[in-house]
Amino acid sequence: MMFDLSKKTKICIEKVKGVPGYVCRKIWKVGRDDPRRVIHAFKVGFSLTLVSLLYLLEPLFKGVGKNAIWAVMTVVVVLEFTAGATICKGLNRGFGTLLAASLAFLFELIAREYGQVFRAFLIGASVFLIGTATTFLRFFPRIKKNYDYGVLIFLLTFNLITVSSYRADDILKLAHGRISTIAIGCGVCILMSLFIFPNWSGEDLHYSTVSKIEGLAKAIEACVDKYFKDDETDIEIDETQEDPIYKNYKAVLDSKSTDETLAHHSSWEPRHSLHCYKFPGKQYVKVGAVLRHFGYSIVALHGSLQTEIRTPRSVRMLFKDPCIRLASEVTKTLNVLAASIRTRRHCSPEILTEHLQSALQDLNHALKSQPRLFLGPDGPNNTSKMLALVAATGRQRSESPLARKSTESPSFSKGTPTGAEKRVLRPTLSKLAITSLEFSEALPFAAFAALLVELVARLDIVIEEVEELGRVACFKEYKHENDVI
Amino acid sequence: MMFDLSKKTKICIEKVKGVPGYVCRKIWKVGRDDPRRVIHAFKVGFSLTLVSLLYLLEPLFKGVGKNAIWAVMTVVVVLEFTAGATICKGLNRGFGTLLAASLAFLFELIAREYGQVFRAFLIGASVFLIGTATTFLRFFPRIKKNYDYGVLIFLLTFNLITVSSYRADDILKLAHGRISTIAIGCGVCILMSLFIFPNWSGEDLHYSTVSKIEGLAKAIEACVDKYFKDDETDIEIDETQEDPIYKNYKAVLDSKSTDETLAHHSSWEPRHSLHCYKFPGKQYVKVGAVLRHFGYSIVALHGSLQTEIRTPRSVRMLFKDPCIRLASEVTKTLNVLAASIRTRRHCSPEILTEHLQSALQDLNHALKSQPRLFLGPDGPNNTSKMLALVAATGRQRSESPLARKSTESPSFSKGTPTGAEKRVLRPTLSKLAITSLEFSEALPFAAFAALLVELVARLDIVIEEVEELGRVACFKEYKHENDVI
Repeated sequence: MMFDLSKKTKICIEKVKGVPGYVCRKIWKVGRDDPRRVIHAFKVGFSLTLVSLLYLLEPLFKGVGKNAIWAVMTVVVVLEFTAGATICKGLNRGFGTLLAASLAFLFELIAREYGQVFRAFLIGASVFLIGTATTFLRFFPRIKKNYDYGVLIFLLTFNLITVSSYRADDILKLAHGRISTIAIGCGVCILMSLFIFPNWSGEDLHYSTVSKIEGLAKAIEACVDKYFKDDETDIEIDETQEDPIYKNYKAVLDSKSTDETLAHHSSWEPRHSLHCYKFPGKQYVKVGAVLRHFGYSIVALHGSLQTEIRTPRSVRMLFKDPCIRLASEVTKTLNVLAASIRTRRHCSPEILTEHLQSALQDLNHALKSQPRLFLGPDGPNNTSKMLALVAATGRQRSESPLARKSTESPSFSKGTPTGAEKRVLRPTLSKLAITSLEFSEALPFAAFAALLVELVARLDIVIEEVEELGRVACFKEYKHENDVI
Repeated sequence: MMFDLSKKTKICIEKVKGVPGYVCRKIWKVGRDDPRRVIHAFKVGFSLTLVSLLYLLEPLFKGVGKNAIWAVMTVVVVLEFTAGATICKGLNRGFGTLLAASLAFLFELIAREYGQVFRAFLIGASVFLIGTATTFLRFFPRIKKNYDYGVLIFLLTFNLITVSSYRADDILKLAHGRISTIAIGCGVCILMSLFIFPNWSGEDLHYSTVSKIEGLAKAIEACVDKYFKDDETDIEIDETQEDPIYKNYKAVLDSKSTDETLAHHSSWEPRHSLHCYKFPGKQYVKVGAVLRHFGYSIVALHGSLQTEIRTPRSVRMLFKDPCIRLASEVTKTLNVLAASIRTRRHCSPEILTEHLQSALQDLNHALKSQPRLFLGPDGPNNTSKMLALVAATGRQRSESPLARKSTESPSFSKGTPTGAEKRVLRPTLSKLAITSLEFSEALPFAAFAALLVELVARLDIVIEEVEELGRVACFKEYKHENDVI
């Protein structure tokens, strides 16, 4: 019993001894993942010490007085990780405070005429009214999205000033002191975030878009590799850890709110207006949306690896090369797009489409060149019927491009007529690839091929939006050497 | 010219006249969409007036003094829409303040021994150190998720107390006054949110899960209906407004962050611990994750309506009934699951699986009963080979269920061995449906059917997680009458 207890104590001590090591590793990991975090932490510490000097140094304290505390408060609340977020919060706080102070004065002017009891009643009523109205205002989607913090600060300041005006003598002086110290605090925050190791929301958005595209490329490659590998090995790999394919595309699937926050903050950043353009946050959000849509297809492709029956190995081997080629072209295209965004340089759309087209045609030829798999009597007849239908659809599509449009959410529906003609060919070819898959054994393969071709069709929309991004963001001209990656 | 100007003015006046109407309609809409918003606004107004009385009424003011302003501040910042969010913020604020005050006293005790200059230096250093460390702490994912607000308040309070201690005489009294008024503010907030028309995050999560499942059901129904409709009418409908199919499933796709926030807030709500169970927020998040995964298949299904070539009408008509039946069984199952969650009552898993199985078998029979579409020479031989493979896979699956597991993210991998046997049959049947689709014309249809069957496979996982939810959340017993919906 005694021995058991001392053993337990030993284990406990061992565990406690492990804690500092664990914490150190954790701290090291968080810092190494993004060293800007360490810098930001020091920036906050430094800013706080700076505004504390208002209180600690005699000459400064004489100027500002006890209100210096509001500067400390402002720095704690306003200084955020990225410049955009800081400016957004700082300006919201500034304008909210100013507006609230003005309104509070108006009420004060009205209330001053009357006796103490009526004044108390009036203050109570105004607090109730403004509180109710402001809270309701925060439910409006547009206000919630852009000015939520400002409205909150408005309510806070209005209440503080109105309520304290009841027992303060010189409300004007009080408000003046507070507003000026809040302004000092906001100023310190904005200066720190703009000029000392600034982190830009726009840059974050930019690079997260690049890494999302690269992740998708990796996921496609892994999916196709796995599909054409032998069955036995796969299952063993799966059990050990998180699915590597899933890991690559999961960041894309849930990117909506992050993207929108970054885009919103980036719209407050002044840096880009010095160049020829405003930072096109909205277009990045659009690219994010089409990437998400592209990602859903990869989820389906990934699903088809596991839930469906495997096509016999012999059939898979027949189409292994063209499928892998098509997938590698999609991957390459995605990587070119990622590189184009990273270097802020246009890529050549012709080169992209050329390779994809020839890969699609390859797959098409491979499917056609297996006559022994073709259906006997109905075969050719049926193929010609399909071809007619394809041609008809192709024409219809070039006349009204809404067939593709309606797949997407309304935000993508902005037409780019310049690229319309050259894009007609690609979906048509895609259809050929599917419709000529007319042979017996390859049916489970049909679903896989269809998804692969669907990917190409969606890639089209991704290319379109990235090109639009290039236009809006004034990417540099396309350079020929740059293409050889 | 003059006429032109007056015309413009008139238009301008017309526009301005339109503004109040627009604003009123907007206000009415926001209020009608969720009447709890109006109630919440009044609750905030009332609470603010209540704490203002601390300042306005003479006897109360004598007790609390100027610190009453901190109660107002607390109410503005802490009172949130749902009870869980309010309690989370209130407790975070309370503990953050207490901890900061204790630490500040410690520093104060050390600093008191020394002279004014050294004290100032010590205060500056401690502000810098604590500011840096705390900001860095906020980057840890777990702390950011659960205690971000508390850490912020800790930093704020620590700075306020430490800095003002430099020039205040009785720091203990100051801190005591503030903490007690903050406690009053937090108390008012928590009472208001718990007892006066409370909004529960748990309820929100519960009903949003129900409506997501119902939306998915509607989307599947609409997809299948559209697929088997004639081509011409569809295109006209699409142009007029947002795609109704997209509208139904879009809420599911981007639900991750909302779900997680609601689940986090619901974990602070005490209401459910009075019953036999804790509110199973985590299980709701899991259900949300499998629903999202299910939703990705619907996106693919939706995509196959538009980007691919249409299967000839004759082929589609052949399989219209079984496909529509399968889809309606999936829809019905989803609706039963939704009703089960809404009424917090178990549903009978047998009835669910029975109907689905017979619908799958129907489709299977329909595919088999078209001998004229079957391949001549290789046909039967090949089918028997497939059947052998299916049987082998079925066996393998019952031995180690990781084939299905690996489709999902690791969070779903919790095995439920009780249901394993009865589930083996369904995926096996699914495969039969695909592998026997061996005929000429129906190839583009193959992809559609494959996705439909994939949906059934994923529905399986949804059923599993909803059943788990029923277990964890102590749903009521299954009642037979209840099933007739």
